[in-house]
Amino acid sequence: MEAQFIAWLRSRLPAPPASLLIGPGDDAAVIDTAKMAGMVATTDMLMDGVDFRLSQVDPRRIGRKALAVNLSDLAAMGSEPVAALVSLSLPRSGGFALARELYEGLLPLAEEFGAAIAGGDTNAWDGPLVISITALGRTTSRGPLLRSGAKAGDAVVVTGELGGSILGKHFDFTPRVREAIALASRYEIHAAMDISDGLLLDLSRLCAESGCGAELELSAIPIAAAAYQLAELQADSCSALDHAVADGEDFELLLALAANDAANAERDQPLLAEHGVRLTPIGRFISEAGIWSVDAAGVREKLEPRGYQHQFD
Amino acid sequence: MEAQFIAWLRSRLPAPPASLLIGPGDDAAVIDTAKMAGMVATTDMLMDGVDFRLSQVDPRRIGRKALAVNLSDLAAMGSEPVAALVSLSLPRSGGFALARELYEGLLPLAEEFGAAIAGGDTNAWDGPLVISITALGRTTSRGPLLRSGAKAGDAVVVTGELGGSILGKHFDFTPRVREAIALASRYEIHAAMDISDGLLLDLSRLCAESGCGAELELSAIPIAAAAYQLAELQADSCSALDHAVADGEDFELLLALAANDAANAERDQPLLAEHGVRLTPIGRFISEAGIWSVDAAGVREKLEPRGYQHQFD
Repeated sequence: MEAQFIAWLRSRLPAPPASLLIGPGDDAAVIDTAKMAGMVATTDMLMDGVDFRLSQVDPRRIGRKALAVNLSDLAAMGSEPVAALVSLSLPRSGGFALARELYEGLLPLAEEFGAAIAGGDTNAWDGPLVISITALGRTTSRGPLLRSGAKAGDAVVVTGELGGSILGKHFDFTPRVREAIALASRYEIHAAMDISDGLLLDLSRLCAESGCGAELELSAIPIAAAAYQLAELQADSCSALDHAVADGEDFELLLALAANDAANAERDQPLLAEHGVRLTPIGRFISEAGIWSVDAAGVREKLEPRGYQHQFD
Repeated sequence: MEAQFIAWLRSRLPAPPASLLIGPGDDAAVIDTAKMAGMVATTDMLMDGVDFRLSQVDPRRIGRKALAVNLSDLAAMGSEPVAALVSLSLPRSGGFALARELYEGLLPLAEEFGAAIAGGDTNAWDGPLVISITALGRTTSRGPLLRSGAKAGDAVVVTGELGGSILGKHFDFTPRVREAIALASRYEIHAAMDISDGLLLDLSRLCAESGCGAELELSAIPIAAAAYQLAELQADSCSALDHAVADGEDFELLLALAANDAANAERDQPLLAEHGVRLTPIGRFISEAGIWSVDAAGVREKLEPRGYQHQFD
């Protein structure tokens, strides 16, 4: 019963931060914005059979992922998480237990990143599990990072390693919130987004918003061990590099940095030591549209923006 | 295809208000909070087969309802709508056309109430339609209206008429945003909520949050014509009054006003003329817990908090 669940949730939630003036239990939450210049808002909906298979995975990982993908969007904007609202469509049978597990998965992540659970809507139905989260963040003094600021000559930089996320990282990744804020406070980031649908596809989107193109040195792309594993597991002749450039759900940052800043950021040992995440320049933005590979000999080849596209007619 | 849909949506949306610093198309939206004391946030998820039947109703009414229930929550907090984020799980076949119709239903309401579409997540799957909206509002100088401030001696006041919403009002109701703001600017509202799960159940919740009870004059309760219709249509011996006190989805305001203010508000002709909505005192809050009926002779009877409860185990 919803009332019983809400009572459980209220007892389970940590003490709300001072910024949450009114938390769950009223008609809506109220967030203190008195010292805030801008509020960043994003939402993602995950569905059983599309983003996860409830029958095959611990529901706590599902709950965690549903929040993490939203925090990744806040990271891409260079913003600090403030609050999250969690809506659920639960299968009727076992729904209460399932809802608890989803929350047990997401609450530690919410606490780690300072996102107070501000509200939500808990429903039961005869359909599969749906979990929809809206995350709210505050802009830093740097202002929001956008997709639209990349300039010809900027370096294309990524965090971490790419590809093969389906083997596990798509559940257990760490949203790059701290890295984005640390980088933005030290370097001039001209554009940013998170890689959720594949490097090439997302880079083509960032280029489209910035009115530019990009050249990639494919040999520089940091390939995740999971991308190699996946290439071996699958019989489809996709290489590890193919996975690194086209697999969805890396949830790493894709950045446009002034070339000089990129070189400095790459060697920024304190930054690396603090977060344990590699920064890798993988190419440069160019004024010409399109994504191109360029090798050491300067040979260019046009790349198709491959990646995950949501299909409906 | 999602990219095609986003292109359509961006072309369809009205020019964003100045308060929406960054609208749909980036990783997240950014809302100007520089002059805002508090941001109100609420979310509601509607599902095919639970909140509507897609096979039986114009999708535009579904889209409108999904936003309206959220605006009703903002109204209950006495806040002004600012933005909304819209997430969809669409059936794969015909999803694009359906998404357009949902938006065609909600966009006029969004514009009427000043809620800019700040973002969303559009997905396709093999399950039924799910629509989840998060609405964001700003508190007025009055501050938010809460459920917790009712005092013994306050009048129990409702807007409009109650019951029988299932016959059509649950789709086509007007969220009481303007009424809440106008009332809050003129009168001392001690507590407020919207009636979404039935008068008695929601009143019992408001009383629980306020640490009080309430006495109702059942003969004073404004009964909607639809409640009489429903009583006639159904063979279950529920009276029109039964429907008025227990039907869900009235989306009227339930208010605690100082007794004197309630009398003044009821006679406030400019307020009535401006919004065309009746205010009706239907009882008083008391220090004793529980909801009671009291008749003209002073005979009291305890009322069970009936209404719509979300069931899951």
